[in-house]
Amino acid sequence: MTRTELKVLILCVGIFPLLLTIYNIGKCDLTVEDDRILREEVSSHITNEFEASVGFQPRVAQAYNHAKRTNPIKYEELECVINGDYSVMGRKEGKDVYMPFSFIQNYFEVYGSLETSDGYERFSFHHSYQDTFPSGPQPKYQPSGVFMSFDQYSVEDRNRVKCVSGIEGVPISTQWERKGHYYPIQIAQYGLSHYSKHLSQPQSKEKVLEDGEETDLSDWLLPDRKSEIRGKMDDRILMDNGVVEFQATTNQKNSGICRSTKEKRLLTLSMDIMFINNGSVTVLIQTGDGNLYRIHYVLSDNIIKLEGKDLYYGIGSHKKGKWIHLTRQVMVDFQKGLTLRFSKNRSNKIKSAAHIAGICVRGHGIMDNVTLRSHAHKDLFFDAADYFVRHQDSEGGWPVKVTRKLIPGVMELEPGWYSAMGQGQAISLLVRAYVASKDRTYLETAGKALNIFDIPSSEGGVLAKFLNTYDWYEEYPTTPSSFVLNGFIYSLLGLYDLKEIAIGRTREKAAELFEKGMRTLKAMLLMFDSGTGTFYDLRHITSGLSPNRARWDYHKVHIKQLYILVELDNDPLFYNTLERWKGYMKGKPAPHN
Amino acid sequence: MTRTELKVLILCVGIFPLLLTIYNIGKCDLTVEDDRILREEVSSHITNEFEASVGFQPRVAQAYNHAKRTNPIKYEELECVINGDYSVMGRKEGKDVYMPFSFIQNYFEVYGSLETSDGYERFSFHHSYQDTFPSGPQPKYQPSGVFMSFDQYSVEDRNRVKCVSGIEGVPISTQWERKGHYYPIQIAQYGLSHYSKHLSQPQSKEKVLEDGEETDLSDWLLPDRKSEIRGKMDDRILMDNGVVEFQATTNQKNSGICRSTKEKRLLTLSMDIMFINNGSVTVLIQTGDGNLYRIHYVLSDNIIKLEGKDLYYGIGSHKKGKWIHLTRQVMVDFQKGLTLRFSKNRSNKIKSAAHIAGICVRGHGIMDNVTLRSHAHKDLFFDAADYFVRHQDSEGGWPVKVTRKLIPGVMELEPGWYSAMGQGQAISLLVRAYVASKDRTYLETAGKALNIFDIPSSEGGVLAKFLNTYDWYEEYPTTPSSFVLNGFIYSLLGLYDLKEIAIGRTREKAAELFEKGMRTLKAMLLMFDSGTGTFYDLRHITSGLSPNRARWDYHKVHIKQLYILVELDNDPLFYNTLERWKGYMKGKPAPHN
Repeated sequence: MTRTELKVLILCVGIFPLLLTIYNIGKCDLTVEDDRILREEVSSHITNEFEASVGFQPRVAQAYNHAKRTNPIKYEELECVINGDYSVMGRKEGKDVYMPFSFIQNYFEVYGSLETSDGYERFSFHHSYQDTFPSGPQPKYQPSGVFMSFDQYSVEDRNRVKCVSGIEGVPISTQWERKGHYYPIQIAQYGLSHYSKHLSQPQSKEKVLEDGEETDLSDWLLPDRKSEIRGKMDDRILMDNGVVEFQATTNQKNSGICRSTKEKRLLTLSMDIMFINNGSVTVLIQTGDGNLYRIHYVLSDNIIKLEGKDLYYGIGSHKKGKWIHLTRQVMVDFQKGLTLRFSKNRSNKIKSAAHIAGICVRGHGIMDNVTLRSHAHKDLFFDAADYFVRHQDSEGGWPVKVTRKLIPGVMELEPGWYSAMGQGQAISLLVRAYVASKDRTYLETAGKALNIFDIPSSEGGVLAKFLNTYDWYEEYPTTPSSFVLNGFIYSLLGLYDLKEIAIGRTREKAAELFEKGMRTLKAMLLMFDSGTGTFYDLRHITSGLSPNRARWDYHKVHIKQLYILVELDNDPLFYNTLERWKGYMKGKPAPHN
Repeated sequence: MTRTELKVLILCVGIFPLLLTIYNIGKCDLTVEDDRILREEVSSHITNEFEASVGFQPRVAQAYNHAKRTNPIKYEELECVINGDYSVMGRKEGKDVYMPFSFIQNYFEVYGSLETSDGYERFSFHHSYQDTFPSGPQPKYQPSGVFMSFDQYSVEDRNRVKCVSGIEGVPISTQWERKGHYYPIQIAQYGLSHYSKHLSQPQSKEKVLEDGEETDLSDWLLPDRKSEIRGKMDDRILMDNGVVEFQATTNQKNSGICRSTKEKRLLTLSMDIMFINNGSVTVLIQTGDGNLYRIHYVLSDNIIKLEGKDLYYGIGSHKKGKWIHLTRQVMVDFQKGLTLRFSKNRSNKIKSAAHIAGICVRGHGIMDNVTLRSHAHKDLFFDAADYFVRHQDSEGGWPVKVTRKLIPGVMELEPGWYSAMGQGQAISLLVRAYVASKDRTYLETAGKALNIFDIPSSEGGVLAKFLNTYDWYEEYPTTPSSFVLNGFIYSLLGLYDLKEIAIGRTREKAAELFEKGMRTLKAMLLMFDSGTGTFYDLRHITSGLSPNRARWDYHKVHIKQLYILVELDNDPLFYNTLERWKGYMKGKPAPHN
């Protein structure tokens, strides 16, 4: 019984000793009995059920709550001195010591949260985040299949994506350069994620607003007398297809020829359009608070501009007089525009309550297949693949136009550097574009991209040599070398995809580079094993500076890549390492001597 | 106020509401006030004083104890689910979660203990054991100085030391081979520890039992009429020195010619003795319970034998007719003998309560300088150095006679292997023997030991090459290479010692090997950096198996070696790495990306 109980008792004892004695004896017996029953229930519960599952029986939960009511635990504050340097307050019960999770969390970099289910509250402790992995055999990796888990990625939604360019049809990165640049790795991942979603997601739902086959065009509202709209036959050779010609002022203040709709779910617009003279397409966006925004896709070379409630995306002045297949994720464009003015949270809030209210066209042109759809992954995937075809340089590479400082003053890259990961991911994308289209241009582009793998980092290429022995393809071809693991493996996957699909010289070259790389990987993989996790790179070995431990996100990427390597090569090294690295995420370190 | 208080109060309230209300109000006010004062005291205390020192003011300790009495806080059991796999019971107080140290200790491999000082109990949490290091500049490392912290070592007391051989005067190891073998590394460390103690410990206290200069020998008791003892002049050329000749039966059952003493502190015996025919020296040991043990040093080639209370150490049959300088740590010999029959604890107990009761001689011989002393480190050091002179093979090495399985079936060494660490530590010992004696034999022996460093592991030597680029001297010259860090650095210290002291070809050769090794060390040191500790070796890189994390003992050896390397080479790599590796022992990991 606590001291306070004692004080109170003494006070009363003077008057009713008997009564109190009886009461007190009774109380104690009761408590002890409760306690015994409870502990049995709990311990049996823990051993029998808990290890199997985290689900809980209400009955046992009751036992706990009961316990909390009837057994105030006797404990004391206890000062815990950490490595003799500072202290935190813990708790002491008899000889048992308890330390505060607030300390454990920061000190050991672990995770935990209170969770309630079945009315029972428990604390969920995790060594790392996302520590669950697919169990059982994985689908075999294929050059024409889903790329790793990229079907889970949404590249365009990332903060470091300024917007998806209307001119190039690919994301613009603000990483390392506020004003933005076309970053090959990001573009390739954008393409690979949409390819993977194309394969893994259900067929797109569609609402066709205009297919040019109807004679009745009364759904299109003309803004004034001078404006016209009429159906005609497509005059492109060998086509028996109806299209719609339109003519209206190009003035943006004028509404243009509009067709109204109300769409909350089908938020991707795709259409074929040719502007005979200047013109634009506008998507009307109605927000939750009744504001009307207008997204204008215009024949300009400005990427993005927000003026009042008018948002402008340039689609390229050079496209006048050409048929364009325009595909836009309208709400992505809207959200990226809003972030030019509002915070990300505010922008997302406005976006999520908005819907598409209409489509308008201006100027003089011809349109067809105006469609709203749930998604158009294949279009976006080809937009990315076509970017790499258009922008490959004479060396066969896609240079990065910004400075990259891996370690300021120690490992820096000047604008114009190539990335083996950029080359490799582009190749994986181009191979899939070839498989999906049978257009050999994609395969030829992929083949040319191999040249960069033979050029040493010191000469502007991506080839590093570990102690003049092992060929390593550098994500960041710094001097000294940085040996970033995930980038190297991505480059190997590109080489694998190409050697599997290409023929002749290209296949031979890709195979040769892939074999060399795999030999290197087998020799060096465990240099990245820290015994409790992995290293992101080998900067410590080449620069003499502190190791750069991979945070759990990157450790998990290493693991996902190992899942693929196990498919590609039966060397037990990959399987054993995969199992150990998975264990690290659950706090199972390598043994010590 | 707790529920139980409430129950008791309600009970009384029925009878004396007023009284209780007053009491209660008073109590509450008091508590709140106490609480405020307390928290101020404590928090100021923690921030101002605790981070500086672990020492405590009684006044503040009082405040804590007071707190424990007067602040009931709602405190409950809380089930903590660990990585979704199993659960442990924690505690919850408001929103604060506490986890049991019993879990933390095992899960994170950390240490903690309850400690009381100034009547104040606290919990001392440690990331590792022995995490304190010398602060400020260290004494410059010198080839003639204390070796690392070996003055703290007591090699002969280790369990894996069977005993110190009377024949060779060096320890016999049972590591990897129960029956025992002469292990060069252990012998060198035995010698280096006694050399270091010789330099760092105060002068030995001595009690001379016989110096042969007195004419009165009545302290020596003759067992029978046939026995004799008499003083004479030392007949070794150019010596004006008195010695004592003795003659008695060689029968061990016979007491021999004895001199009694009672010595609890001066437990090392040293004497000069020559047996003209067979004979022995016996040390009488009286135990706490009055038993009398006899340690016989006999002209035999048996290492050690215990019969009843008679313990036999062979000193080598070949020593008959030669002057011997015999130096024995009597209680070490006694304890090792007892462990042939009793547990280590029991043996230590018996030993610690025992004293030397007398010295006896048998057979026909001459003796001089019979002395009991607190220590004789210099003698033992030279015993070890002389062992290496006597046993160097034609290649210049000291082969290890037992099988070593670093990884069974993967990294194994057959009997007859050399160890670069053994060679290096022997060199460090021999260099010091030369410095202490000016006897060039030691230096020549050290010079010959260099040859082994040029022979590849694959050809029975110790030279490994990392990717055909870096020369590494292997503690365990396995194939594939194991690259044990601490052994490599010890071998470098041997090379350093020799290049500093030797001249001519030997100096050049040692310098060349040292420079090559340092180049390797600078290139490979950080391959052992795990970001939270160090690796013992690079087996994971060469074998593809799990990394072998260094336990904190070995991590601390790495750190002690870095302290020396910082002295020998001003490359910032060593200093920066030293600081980071010290931080690991206090739970300061390398950063992650």
